[in-house]
Amino acid sequence: MSAVRPIDPLLPSPDVDLAERLFGELRARTGDSGGITRASYGDGEQLAHDMVKREAQALGLAIRVDAGLNLALTLPGRTRAPAVVIGSHLDSVPCGGNYDGAAGVLMGLAVAAGFRKAGLVPSRDLTVLVTRAEESTWFNASYIGSRGVLGLIAAEELDTVTRSDTGRSLGDHIAALGGDPAALARGEAMMSPANVACFIEPHIEQGPQLIADDRPVGVVTGIRGSFRHRAAACLGAYGHSGTTPHALRRDAVVGASALVMALQDLWDRLEAAGEDLTVTLGQFATDPREHAFSKVPGRVDFALDVRSQSTQTLETVKAEAYAIATRIERQHRVRFDWGPLSGSRPAVMDAGVVDGLVAAAEAQGVAAPRMPCGAGHDAAVFANAGIPSGMLFIRNANGSHNPHEHMAMADFAAAANVLSRFCLEICSETP
Amino acid sequence: MSAVRPIDPLLPSPDVDLAERLFGELRARTGDSGGITRASYGDGEQLAHDMVKREAQALGLAIRVDAGLNLALTLPGRTRAPAVVIGSHLDSVPCGGNYDGAAGVLMGLAVAAGFRKAGLVPSRDLTVLVTRAEESTWFNASYIGSRGVLGLIAAEELDTVTRSDTGRSLGDHIAALGGDPAALARGEAMMSPANVACFIEPHIEQGPQLIADDRPVGVVTGIRGSFRHRAAACLGAYGHSGTTPHALRRDAVVGASALVMALQDLWDRLEAAGEDLTVTLGQFATDPREHAFSKVPGRVDFALDVRSQSTQTLETVKAEAYAIATRIERQHRVRFDWGPLSGSRPAVMDAGVVDGLVAAAEAQGVAAPRMPCGAGHDAAVFANAGIPSGMLFIRNANGSHNPHEHMAMADFAAAANVLSRFCLEICSETP
Repeated sequence: MSAVRPIDPLLPSPDVDLAERLFGELRARTGDSGGITRASYGDGEQLAHDMVKREAQALGLAIRVDAGLNLALTLPGRTRAPAVVIGSHLDSVPCGGNYDGAAGVLMGLAVAAGFRKAGLVPSRDLTVLVTRAEESTWFNASYIGSRGVLGLIAAEELDTVTRSDTGRSLGDHIAALGGDPAALARGEAMMSPANVACFIEPHIEQGPQLIADDRPVGVVTGIRGSFRHRAAACLGAYGHSGTTPHALRRDAVVGASALVMALQDLWDRLEAAGEDLTVTLGQFATDPREHAFSKVPGRVDFALDVRSQSTQTLETVKAEAYAIATRIERQHRVRFDWGPLSGSRPAVMDAGVVDGLVAAAEAQGVAAPRMPCGAGHDAAVFANAGIPSGMLFIRNANGSHNPHEHMAMADFAAAANVLSRFCLEICSETP
Repeated sequence: MSAVRPIDPLLPSPDVDLAERLFGELRARTGDSGGITRASYGDGEQLAHDMVKREAQALGLAIRVDAGLNLALTLPGRTRAPAVVIGSHLDSVPCGGNYDGAAGVLMGLAVAAGFRKAGLVPSRDLTVLVTRAEESTWFNASYIGSRGVLGLIAAEELDTVTRSDTGRSLGDHIAALGGDPAALARGEAMMSPANVACFIEPHIEQGPQLIADDRPVGVVTGIRGSFRHRAAACLGAYGHSGTTPHALRRDAVVGASALVMALQDLWDRLEAAGEDLTVTLGQFATDPREHAFSKVPGRVDFALDVRSQSTQTLETVKAEAYAIATRIERQHRVRFDWGPLSGSRPAVMDAGVVDGLVAAAEAQGVAAPRMPCGAGHDAAVFANAGIPSGMLFIRNANGSHNPHEHMAMADFAAAANVLSRFCLEICSETP
């Protein structure tokens, strides 16, 4: 870990103890031996929102809940100038970790609490935004919460997008928790470029770079976009494993495996050419109702997730994937059913925000590397809506979306100090 | 269909109507819209055994049940010379068809009924053997029933082999239905080379050859053996799909897919060299408790089934598969856990029996092709125990192990006439 200079006595000290206590409560109340599970618009996420709201009340922050049940906790400024917003989400993937999302929310709360305890009144509102439904493993749609904050939910999504475990629609789930799907459908927005000066999302790093670099904090330059086929299938024909001749087989495992290997080759080629890319088939299964070790497999269901910082690269891979599948269909007598297409645009972080965060880190004695971000985040929605946005990465071991996420509180504290200084800079200016 | 000569008036006429009625009853009582399911040592198989026993009683056949609950239905001969045994099984794969196994049993019963109705007393016992647990999708062991008949069950199998759906041991299941696992463990045998003159298994063809050849009946020359890893796994590491760099991934789907494709290449090569082989990975799945479209997959469970008429080919493929896996482990940073190895020896059918069946067909005006058999059958156990064995294939559409098995009763009748003539030849000789 880099040496961190003593805190400037004029700087408010973020309330890291508050954050640590809340991490503990979250783990105790939404975790079990299999990991952390906080379903989007489900029990775990609601519990986490209620917990954070309780703390905001204790701190005397102003509380707003929007139509999509996103939560805004504001330390009111001297003016109504566009606010500084620190935000992230509180849902998790099934059997995930405690820090993905929650670290950003609790860091915002720690910074606001630090300002409050220091008796600082910012020149503009300092808002902690707690979004909903960022982990799209629950709903087959990206960034539902932050798009709701900005009035960007399409009316039909409320009916057609359903939660993977319940099968119930997004609108149903929102209404059941007291939200207002009709207002979301009308595009009512809590935030916009007119009332937000900048959006900052602190988040654990989900890759290994900060550990490799031995740095507690990084500053994100851009967020990968994606395209996804989350319910694709390779269809063949079942047959007896001992008697169906090789030349007549329509083996779905062979067809889908051929796709996996061809996409690996494509990734190798594009990466060698300097393009930014990830290709993942994270779900891949024969049908347990029909498969047997002694049957040629007639069906494989799979999910394809492709990410890049470049829209052009995403388009190239999509076209190549379909062409590869067509070749495999001919060669192996199978058929691909791609199912619905979803995804998100890549997002570029604001140069001024990036420079400001790097400078704030430097002033804290931390050399924060500039780095791309491989995963999607709410900050992508704010950036693509024209709001200057940035992300602060906190060093973290073992990746994310698994129970072994590991963020040291010392790194969290270092990042909170950087963020607190950045906010102080903006909130000290006369708007 | 070939022209079939009028039945010789001296030949007993097999009771095909009886068989047709029993096929209907079996379908009605062990099938639903998803197909036929008769679990080994389960409700469906027991029901089928009870049904056949009831018919044997009505025909006045002598009934024996052995320690493993295999059923022998005997038309007593004039002497106790080694018997002619016609046999097959009554269990099915889950969601399978009505004819795999049952066709052999009901043909045996039709032939015995024909002898009985003609008032023929054979020179030696004519026995219909109804085995148990031939479909090893239920228990991870091959030919449990017929090995029990011959006293070839290893004592430890009774405890260690468990049924895939119940998790209970083979011994438990046998005892629950009134069998005697202790006697099986001691190797008590109902049949042996000393008391069986020959074993004939009629069976639907599970491949497409007889349809292609336009023949109702075929005579099998040899049965493929196998090796199997039915609970193998490729182990990698879970990670975030957007942030885990390509070079650091330990992607289990990529590792397992690489194995699938390398084994396809191996099959292509060996087949081109004239070797007899099938390679199937019929089950292949990421872990639904942990996988997500946004996670690098950390585990794939799969089953490998390899079959050949040549023991040498099986050994070659086994060694190559392990070597391929070792290369993949290095290249893709995964690990293969092969789990238990099971399988069966290839079996050669008796030349005298094969010639006798072909001659009997010819005498009926049917040109029965000699052909290899791709699937495992009880006849392999009898052949490898030194009992002269043979198989009669009945034309069948759509393969087997699926609900669309389709055998015409006219083809069944043609095969039953061939078998009846073959039995009459042997049972007319003075032993």
